[in-house]
Amino acid sequence: MTVFGGNVKESGRALRDAHLSDDEAVAKMGHPAWWGGGDGLGKLEGMENDVTLPLGFVWGAVKAGIKASGNLDVAVAMAPKGAVGAAMFTRNQVVAAPVTVGRRHLAATGGRVSAVLVNAGNANCATGAAGIDACERTCVAAAEAFGCIFDEVFPSSTGIIGVPFPTEKVVAAMPSVKAVLGETSEHAELFARAIMTTDTKMKVARAVIEVEGTEVRIFGVAKGAGMIHPQMGPPHATMLVYLFTDVVAKAEQLRAVMEPTVEGSFNSISIDGDTSTNDTVLLVASGASGVALDGTVAESFANGLKLVCDSLAHQIVDDGEGVGHVVTLRISGARTKAEAKVVAKAIAHSPLCKTAWSSADPNWGRLLAAAGYSGVEFDPAFVTVTIGGLPVFEGGMRAAAFDETAVHELMLGREYTIAMDLGVGEEECVFLTCDLTAEYVRINADYST
Amino acid sequence: MTVFGGNVKESGRALRDAHLSDDEAVAKMGHPAWWGGGDGLGKLEGMENDVTLPLGFVWGAVKAGIKASGNLDVAVAMAPKGAVGAAMFTRNQVVAAPVTVGRRHLAATGGRVSAVLVNAGNANCATGAAGIDACERTCVAAAEAFGCIFDEVFPSSTGIIGVPFPTEKVVAAMPSVKAVLGETSEHAELFARAIMTTDTKMKVARAVIEVEGTEVRIFGVAKGAGMIHPQMGPPHATMLVYLFTDVVAKAEQLRAVMEPTVEGSFNSISIDGDTSTNDTVLLVASGASGVALDGTVAESFANGLKLVCDSLAHQIVDDGEGVGHVVTLRISGARTKAEAKVVAKAIAHSPLCKTAWSSADPNWGRLLAAAGYSGVEFDPAFVTVTIGGLPVFEGGMRAAAFDETAVHELMLGREYTIAMDLGVGEEECVFLTCDLTAEYVRINADYST
Repeated sequence: MTVFGGNVKESGRALRDAHLSDDEAVAKMGHPAWWGGGDGLGKLEGMENDVTLPLGFVWGAVKAGIKASGNLDVAVAMAPKGAVGAAMFTRNQVVAAPVTVGRRHLAATGGRVSAVLVNAGNANCATGAAGIDACERTCVAAAEAFGCIFDEVFPSSTGIIGVPFPTEKVVAAMPSVKAVLGETSEHAELFARAIMTTDTKMKVARAVIEVEGTEVRIFGVAKGAGMIHPQMGPPHATMLVYLFTDVVAKAEQLRAVMEPTVEGSFNSISIDGDTSTNDTVLLVASGASGVALDGTVAESFANGLKLVCDSLAHQIVDDGEGVGHVVTLRISGARTKAEAKVVAKAIAHSPLCKTAWSSADPNWGRLLAAAGYSGVEFDPAFVTVTIGGLPVFEGGMRAAAFDETAVHELMLGREYTIAMDLGVGEEECVFLTCDLTAEYVRINADYST
Repeated sequence: MTVFGGNVKESGRALRDAHLSDDEAVAKMGHPAWWGGGDGLGKLEGMENDVTLPLGFVWGAVKAGIKASGNLDVAVAMAPKGAVGAAMFTRNQVVAAPVTVGRRHLAATGGRVSAVLVNAGNANCATGAAGIDACERTCVAAAEAFGCIFDEVFPSSTGIIGVPFPTEKVVAAMPSVKAVLGETSEHAELFARAIMTTDTKMKVARAVIEVEGTEVRIFGVAKGAGMIHPQMGPPHATMLVYLFTDVVAKAEQLRAVMEPTVEGSFNSISIDGDTSTNDTVLLVASGASGVALDGTVAESFANGLKLVCDSLAHQIVDDGEGVGHVVTLRISGARTKAEAKVVAKAIAHSPLCKTAWSSADPNWGRLLAAAGYSGVEFDPAFVTVTIGGLPVFEGGMRAAAFDETAVHELMLGREYTIAMDLGVGEEECVFLTCDLTAEYVRINADYST
């Protein structure tokens, strides 16, 4: 069996002009440039580009006039009869209407998903009972347009919060979305573009699992936790992830494979520590490959899903607001994985650590201090810290071999790993984060009356 | 009975040129300008300036060559025979040598404190066993110079961490410190100046408690959580607070009055969420007033101590790195005070909330989102939010009376209150914090090889 995964470094593409690019994207329909081309995802070894999308799905998007930019803002993915899904949502207690509705729909249908309906430009959050009603009405409109049951429509929204939802714009867009639905990579690109907000890159990743001559495909698309609307009304940051696969599975099988994968990917990244009200990860299986998710397939599928999720998670951090450096924290020697993660999060959320990274400052004192106030018990005398493999701290003080200039130069790179061993156990975790820059502050402080 | 407290707004003084000011301060000895003068603390109603310092103490400081700036950096306060103290330390598990030694000394002596020895310029943290030894040696030197027992010396350090402690400089400074010790406000100012690092203002506050013709005095001095050394070696931020009083008390009485006061003041502020390895609050009672801490005195003393601590806590936030706005968070309607504080901290540590404040952005969505991910359970439908008393959010959506322009203009002010009622209980808390500015990032990212 073989798992092919998109290379992390190549799986995002810079959009130099989002407005132009959307038009180009529409104009380009039928020209398979981005998917396998030189400026796109890159060609994956051992397979043709036309077989990399999961079977059974169609995608599309249109401009419904919700984004102030006038770009693509309503996206739809249709799954075939019998498709099932599993979702994980933000742990925030303040949730947007589509999160409430999405939970209800999955519960009501036992996980059946016929359509995914996403809009960008309005988060439909803090909109009260009217927001719930608005969301349901768009699901009904989609169901009528696409010939499915309304609670098999899975809704998502991202954008401004606290602003009444533009229900009529979404409802009115259904016929034109239906007209552009298709199964090619260009159609998938429309979907990926429409859910973007201030993302500077599309975020897609894919994997193909080969088991004894059969193939199962996974295609993931995400928008990052980086969104700002310099307009009246509060800006809002949200992560949306859609994972499409053609494996044959039950909803509970999808949940079982999804939860540890999300824990190790999307739940192990942080840009600024702020958890959105709309965060959603949805995994939908069309069953069109005819290959069941069991036996050896299950293990390979889990590996493939992990490749896709890890890639998308990395793309999200790499495209974070104002990010200059992507930092992998590897916390080892912990009593439990949970404790390792507590230490990682304390470091990842420490403004003093994050600002030090922005200037390539090998400031191990701030790392130690953050670990020290995390609440996890350890003795600094047994802690070791390396940056990019170079010794920094050991024996309760700066490492004898600490070469400050060498570590500083290493930290000038875009990406590096900080490894801390707590010396109290055998468990570890890997956590992905980034620096805090003046540009981040400028982006998020930008306010025009 | 009456409690006089220094006015928060007047109790700090800007130091326009720290280097010059230290020289002026030394030259000024015997000229009581700062303490009651126009540019100082202001004259407090109903008492003369010469009676505001607690009896029995002498203060002083010298330049020992530890600060790179050459400013005052070794400070001493001497208490009379029989003085007792109580201290609270950082909850960080990575602690500096003087924190370890200070704990040991208080435990060994049952709380007796004869001298407080503080240095700035080197935190004596992450210095291993050699750091503990260095700290003890300075305590022994102080004890010899001042004629007390070495474990009645309470040590503190603030400054660079991970750099070997300059023991000899501190030891050599003891005779010259002894020569400048005195009981006047000018001597107290030397102490207050010497413990400063990148603080831009001295932080002092005082209160006098009058009970049936007797007086008890409290004098507090602090350095803020704002310190940076653009030098080799990691910078480090620390809060040090010394509270001197002439009340007659036992160590356990001091602890009892101190803990709730610290919880409501220094434990209810945050600049950046980073907890230092050296944070220390020490309360020392000389007993020289002859007034015992019991009966009605106890209640008045608690009020006076609260005034002093609240003032110092406010001064620390107001002088925080890059602070443009001081924000009071009042979280009410909580099930417990602890839950109210959890919500307050989530908001106070949210980069998205803090950056919005820096641009006077009335972004209630970020406040709601932070409360939502705090882990405290509530229903957004019953939450109300006001900013400066103006309605912002209620009934699960933006308040009908929300006037964005008015709230924005109010937030242009230096200081305002954000009140959030969770609608699930009767408890509340008040928490003081500040915005996150590009200047904060610049200060903490400043790194020169």
